[in-house]
Amino acid sequence: MTDQRQLKLGFILHGVGPGWGDWRHPDAQPNASTNFQFYKRQAQVAEAGKFDFLFVADSVYITEKSSPHYLNRFEPLTILSALAGATNNIGLVGTLTVSYSEPFNVARQFASLDHISGGRAGWNVVTSWLEGSAANYSREKHYAHDVRYRLAGEYLDVVQGLWDSWEDDALTFDKKGGQFFDPAKLHTLNHKGEFFSVKGPLNISRSPQGQPVIFQAGASEDGKAFAARRADAIFVSHEDLDAAQAYYKDIKARAAAFGRDPDQLHVLPAARPVVGRTAEEAEAKYQELIELVSIDNALSSLARPFNEYDFTQHDLDGPFPLEAAEFGANSNQSAVNRIVEAVKAEDLTLRQTALRFATPRGHFVGSTEQVADNLQQWFEERGADGFVLFESLPGQLEAFVELVVPILQQRGLFRTDYEGSTFRESLGLDFPVNRYSRALQAAE
Amino acid sequence: MTDQRQLKLGFILHGVGPGWGDWRHPDAQPNASTNFQFYKRQAQVAEAGKFDFLFVADSVYITEKSSPHYLNRFEPLTILSALAGATNNIGLVGTLTVSYSEPFNVARQFASLDHISGGRAGWNVVTSWLEGSAANYSREKHYAHDVRYRLAGEYLDVVQGLWDSWEDDALTFDKKGGQFFDPAKLHTLNHKGEFFSVKGPLNISRSPQGQPVIFQAGASEDGKAFAARRADAIFVSHEDLDAAQAYYKDIKARAAAFGRDPDQLHVLPAARPVVGRTAEEAEAKYQELIELVSIDNALSSLARPFNEYDFTQHDLDGPFPLEAAEFGANSNQSAVNRIVEAVKAEDLTLRQTALRFATPRGHFVGSTEQVADNLQQWFEERGADGFVLFESLPGQLEAFVELVVPILQQRGLFRTDYEGSTFRESLGLDFPVNRYSRALQAAE
Repeated sequence: MTDQRQLKLGFILHGVGPGWGDWRHPDAQPNASTNFQFYKRQAQVAEAGKFDFLFVADSVYITEKSSPHYLNRFEPLTILSALAGATNNIGLVGTLTVSYSEPFNVARQFASLDHISGGRAGWNVVTSWLEGSAANYSREKHYAHDVRYRLAGEYLDVVQGLWDSWEDDALTFDKKGGQFFDPAKLHTLNHKGEFFSVKGPLNISRSPQGQPVIFQAGASEDGKAFAARRADAIFVSHEDLDAAQAYYKDIKARAAAFGRDPDQLHVLPAARPVVGRTAEEAEAKYQELIELVSIDNALSSLARPFNEYDFTQHDLDGPFPLEAAEFGANSNQSAVNRIVEAVKAEDLTLRQTALRFATPRGHFVGSTEQVADNLQQWFEERGADGFVLFESLPGQLEAFVELVVPILQQRGLFRTDYEGSTFRESLGLDFPVNRYSRALQAAE
Repeated sequence: MTDQRQLKLGFILHGVGPGWGDWRHPDAQPNASTNFQFYKRQAQVAEAGKFDFLFVADSVYITEKSSPHYLNRFEPLTILSALAGATNNIGLVGTLTVSYSEPFNVARQFASLDHISGGRAGWNVVTSWLEGSAANYSREKHYAHDVRYRLAGEYLDVVQGLWDSWEDDALTFDKKGGQFFDPAKLHTLNHKGEFFSVKGPLNISRSPQGQPVIFQAGASEDGKAFAARRADAIFVSHEDLDAAQAYYKDIKARAAAFGRDPDQLHVLPAARPVVGRTAEEAEAKYQELIELVSIDNALSSLARPFNEYDFTQHDLDGPFPLEAAEFGANSNQSAVNRIVEAVKAEDLTLRQTALRFATPRGHFVGSTEQVADNLQQWFEERGADGFVLFESLPGQLEAFVELVVPILQQRGLFRTDYEGSTFRESLGLDFPVNRYSRALQAAE
C-alpha cells in the first residue's frame, strides 16, 4: 500500500467563502475573513485530517462592487506565519503577485516563513489579472499578458537564486575560532536581467526545505508553459473530468519535454465538496447555497474575469454580450475563454450565464461515498494528482475530514499520518540541492 | 499611584544579539536568529515581565563583512505574525523601509498583523541608510537623505489613508437584507503625490487599533522633524543622560509646535542592561562581552554607519581618519556625527574608536538596584519616557524580568498588569478616529 500513488489534499482558507452569498448562510461567521480564531480552527481541522497544505488566495485591487471575500481579507504572508505557530505538519501556501512586489522582499518573506514553520512554506506565483491593480501601485498600466509571464520567469530566477545564497552548511558557528560562517559558502547572485537587477546575497540562511515549494495557478497558454517548467504543483479549475484529463495529459507531457520527472509536478484541481450523509441531504445543501446569491451579485461576479465589464447595460434575458470577451482580453483569459465556450455551446442568456458561474455545481455534491468515488475517479483516471478543496457552507471542512477522509484512507488512497516534517516530504518532492554545492560536486 | 507617569518598556528580539561577538558566548545559541522557539521563549518572558512591546530591527543589504545579526535574520512581518499567536498582550513592532517597498502592500501587512494580534501592531518607519541596498532592488542609486524623508512623509500619508479606507462600523453583515457593508462607509483614497499614486481602497477592514502605532528611529534633523510630527514613539540612542535630556526636551517642544500633545509621543532610548546580583558580578559580565570582539570585527562594525568605508587602509594606532565622515555623509548621519564628536573631543586613535563603538558600555551595567536607579533617573529627569532594551549576554532578559522589573513595580514606576487589550492602550495613546467619520461628525 505504501507504493500506491497517494492523493494530495489542500484546503483554501477563505474566511467567508468565495461565493457571493456564502456569508449570508445562517451558520456563517460573516467576520471570518479577518478572524484569526476562525482561521486557526480551520487550519487545525485540516491538519487533523492530514491535509498536505493550507492555501491562501489573494488579490490586490477592490472596488465597492467586489465580492465579500475580496473586500476584506488577511494578507497571505502574515496569516500563514501566524498559523505556522498553531500547526505542526501542514504546508502553508501563500499567493503573492510578481507584478507588484520586489523579489528581494518576497524571497526573504518566504524563506523566513520556511524557517519559522520548520520547512512548510509554499509560494503560489501569480501575475495578477486585474487591470485596476496598477492604480494601487503608482503605475499607469498593468503589464500585458505575455510580459507578465516573461517577468514572472525572471522574478522566479531571482528569488530561487537568492534562496541559494547560503549553502546548507554555510553557518559554521565556530565559537572558539570566531568563525560565524564559511565565506566560501556564501554566494552573491549578481542578477542583471530585462526587469530586475538584484545583487544579493539574501540576509537569511538556506531554509529547511532548501527551496520553498512553488505553486502556479495560471491556466492560459503562457501560464501552462510556465507551470510545466517551474512549478512543483499546479492549482487549476475544470468544468469536468474530460477537461481535467486533457489538461493533465498536456501538462505532464510538457513537463517531460522540459526534461522533468512528471511525478515531481502535482496537478491539483479545485473542488468544493458539498457532502451529506445521503445524496438528498447534499442536494438540499447545494440548493441552500444557490438561494443565497442575488442576480445583482451574480452579475458582479461575472464582471470580474471580464475586467469589470458593465453587464448591467444589457438585457438579462437576451443573448450573452460577446463583446465583453474583447473588453476582458488582457484580464483572466482562461476564465473568459471557458465562459465564452459554454455560452456558445449552449446558447446561454446573460442571466443563465451569470447564475451558472456564480454558484457552479461542480462534481462533488453528494453522499460521502459519492464524493469519495468522484475524487477517486478523477485521481485514478488521471484528471488529478489531488485536490485543492474549499468550503462555501459552514461545517463542510469538518464533514469532509470526519466522513470522507476515512473512506479515502480505507481505500489506501490517502495517508493516515504525515510522512516527514516538511511540506516537500508530504508532497514527495526531491530536496533541491543548492546550485553552488551542485556545481562543486560536479567539478570534483 | 495610577496617576503617576509610567515607564514604557520594549525589548528588541535580536536572535544572536547585536554585538559582533555575542554569538561566541559559551551560553549563546548561535542559530538563535532563525530559531522560532528562541524567539517565542523571549517573547513570552518579555510578556511575563509586562513589557509594552517587542521590537524587530531590520536591514535589506549585507556583504560578507556584515555582523552576524545582520547576516542571518527573520524578516520582521513574518516573525511578528508568528509571535502574535504565541502571545496575548505585548505589542509587536516591526521595522520596514519605505525606500524599497510598496505602500499598498505595507498597509495591508500591518493591518493584517493588527487584526491577527487583536490590536498589537506597530510599524517602525525607516528610510534605510545603507547605500548598497539599492543594488538589491533594481535601482541605480539609493535616495539622497532629504528625498528619503520627503518620500517617507508621503508614504505614511498613503498608508494611514489606506488604513482609514473602511470606517469602523462599515461592515454591516446584514444577512437578511443581503448587505455585507455600507457603501457610504467605504472610502477610496485617490492619492496622487510626488512619489506615489495609490487609488485604494484597502482590501482589509479597519483594524482593532484603528491605526497601528508608528515608531520612528531616525536621529538626524530630518528624522527628528518627521518623528515630532508623525510618530507615536521614537527609538533613539544616546551616549549619556545630558544628551538624552537635550534630545527629549527638543523633540517634545517640536511636537508641541506641531500642535500635538507631547505626552502622546514617547521617547524611548535604547539600553542594554548588564545586570548582576552585585556590581562586581555585572562588571565581570561586561568584561566577558568585550573579550568576545576582535579588532577586525570592531573595524567592520565601525565601517557600517560610514557606508562601508575601508578603515583597514589606515594605521590602527594613528589618528582616526576624518575623511571617512565625508564618505559616509549620505549614510547614517547621526551615528557618524556622534562618533566624530567623540573622536575630536578625546583625540582617539582608530583602534580606540573601533573598540569603544563595538561594545559601548552604556549606563546600565550594575547591580539590580543600580540598574533600576539609573533607569529611574533617566525617566524622572526627563531623558526618557521608557526604554527599548536588548541583550547581548544570554539570560539577561530573564535576569531583568526576574530582578529589575519587581523593583520598578515596587517603586510605582511600572505596571503590574496590562491596562487593556491593545498596544495603544498599553502606551496610553488615544484611539485615532477615522478621518471620514471625523469629517462627518464635524459637519453635523
